[in-house]
Amino acid sequence: MSSKIRIGIVGYGNLGRGVEASLQQQADMELVGIFSRRGPAGVEALNPDVPVHLLTDIESFEDHMDVLLLCGGSATDLPEQTPALTRHFHTVDSFDNHAEIPQHFARVDEVAQKSQKIGLISVGWDPGLFSLNRVLADAVLPQGETYTFWGKGLSQGHSDAVRRVEGVAAAVQYTIPSQEAMSLVRQGEQPDLSAFDRHVRVVYVVPEDGVDKESLATTIQEMPNYFEGYETHVYFIDQGTMDRDHQAMPHGGLVIRSGETGEGNPQVMEFGLTLGSNPEFTASALVAYARGVYRMAQMGDYGAKTLYDVAPGWLSPRSMEELRRDFL
Amino acid sequence: MSSKIRIGIVGYGNLGRGVEASLQQQADMELVGIFSRRGPAGVEALNPDVPVHLLTDIESFEDHMDVLLLCGGSATDLPEQTPALTRHFHTVDSFDNHAEIPQHFARVDEVAQKSQKIGLISVGWDPGLFSLNRVLADAVLPQGETYTFWGKGLSQGHSDAVRRVEGVAAAVQYTIPSQEAMSLVRQGEQPDLSAFDRHVRVVYVVPEDGVDKESLATTIQEMPNYFEGYETHVYFIDQGTMDRDHQAMPHGGLVIRSGETGEGNPQVMEFGLTLGSNPEFTASALVAYARGVYRMAQMGDYGAKTLYDVAPGWLSPRSMEELRRDFL
Repeated sequence: MSSKIRIGIVGYGNLGRGVEASLQQQADMELVGIFSRRGPAGVEALNPDVPVHLLTDIESFEDHMDVLLLCGGSATDLPEQTPALTRHFHTVDSFDNHAEIPQHFARVDEVAQKSQKIGLISVGWDPGLFSLNRVLADAVLPQGETYTFWGKGLSQGHSDAVRRVEGVAAAVQYTIPSQEAMSLVRQGEQPDLSAFDRHVRVVYVVPEDGVDKESLATTIQEMPNYFEGYETHVYFIDQGTMDRDHQAMPHGGLVIRSGETGEGNPQVMEFGLTLGSNPEFTASALVAYARGVYRMAQMGDYGAKTLYDVAPGWLSPRSMEELRRDFL
Repeated sequence: MSSKIRIGIVGYGNLGRGVEASLQQQADMELVGIFSRRGPAGVEALNPDVPVHLLTDIESFEDHMDVLLLCGGSATDLPEQTPALTRHFHTVDSFDNHAEIPQHFARVDEVAQKSQKIGLISVGWDPGLFSLNRVLADAVLPQGETYTFWGKGLSQGHSDAVRRVEGVAAAVQYTIPSQEAMSLVRQGEQPDLSAFDRHVRVVYVVPEDGVDKESLATTIQEMPNYFEGYETHVYFIDQGTMDRDHQAMPHGGLVIRSGETGEGNPQVMEFGLTLGSNPEFTASALVAYARGVYRMAQMGDYGAKTLYDVAPGWLSPRSMEELRRDFL
């Protein structure tokens, strides 16, 4: 009899693939199956031995999985899937539409209270580990300012927006933290910085033949809601360079709290990520928090949760005794 | 009737003073009193209105305080005080003798199980927030290496050791992370680095008159258990410079996890502190965790604990609803 934590993956895009890869690093977990609307014919798992099922069949696996990791999108998949699946399973999702979190939490909680399951929402890095550090920093240093910087990272939404501009054959957009703004905050200053001041945007464009590059650059730089107001640099490259240098999905960023204690002593707390693969890191966070959910369920807890409800020791495969001896 | 969390401070050195200062920033807490072996005559509180009592009188305050913050030293005070006081109160200490943590935990737990109080040990930054990040990083990125760097910081123990060397009138020692080692790890490398490789030691000495400086520097650089094996720089200064430039108690450091996911994608997590006042920051962490202890006690929990048992949301004065809406 296996005593491993039995995991199911729902949705198999970049994030689902990342979860499958991450589970291979976790000795105390096993992947029971991948559930997709596309079914077995439409999914090519990293490990061909992993069973793939139609999502509509998932309820028949109710007694065979401990925690489901929901890897769909926040726009349409998760608002529907997380409440629906928390009727039958403990779930973890990466719902990342910040403004909609309270409503999503309420919908999941309503179901979870009845089913006595745990629905842990908005896990990843932002929302996720960055959110955790914003709360930690605010609690330890109540007097101060917290700054979140994103990047260097590929922004999918901004890249898509540039690709829709006439004259653009291909494009990627990176968000980069402003070095000047970062170093001010790190020195213990508490400047008034908008998102415009904290970030620089860099766009690499493969232009269509015969396009006026100068006017194309200006069009991009002035796009409202995307680039207007930002320091935006546009570089033109050829398709070969695009294919060679811009296929990875790096991301990262920093949460910095610049605070003060006593008679004006500066205190700076900083949490940073430099990610070679954004979806694989998000997936790794989901997997660690699946362990937290499993532990909380064993303790009899249920309802909608966020990572604010999860003690750090519950995320680790190691015993509390080992953590106290070797990590404290 | 006050609904604030009622706090007592036990021991009034740098850390106790830091706790008093930190409590002034927390609207949901009140300081009931300072308890010291020296009693009212021997303690000058930052706020002269704060009552000071003899430590031996503390049991008569059993119904008047929710959490005690123990600010004594780890060598002789806390091994005795934490178990003794957890008989009657919920306690938080900053026990920082890493090797003795399991024994200290066991002694506190034995008492706490009987008294049904919480004894939260080893809070601060290392042990403390650094320990928390070591566990978080290990859980999220199981494949990788974690590196802890200390500094730039004043090392009290090393400064004292230099002061005992013949020919030294005054001295301070700073530990500084090796820039070279740090940048290797930040790039996603996983080098094999001893504490010697990770740190540089810098000593400022006021020599006694007529001392041979060159041989004094060599004596210091070769001190076993303190400097032998480290890259150590010794600088000679006069007493005026010492008084002017070396009175602050800065410290800080970094915990960096260099990990890997999927097919060799580097993932780097980093938590750093740059502290203008080491004791005031440690005090601020104790105060935030006092709130966590209060919440856990309200939930009916008891026993010896570490920060691995405390969910991040319990540290915040804000409601979970506010945290989800504004911080997630």
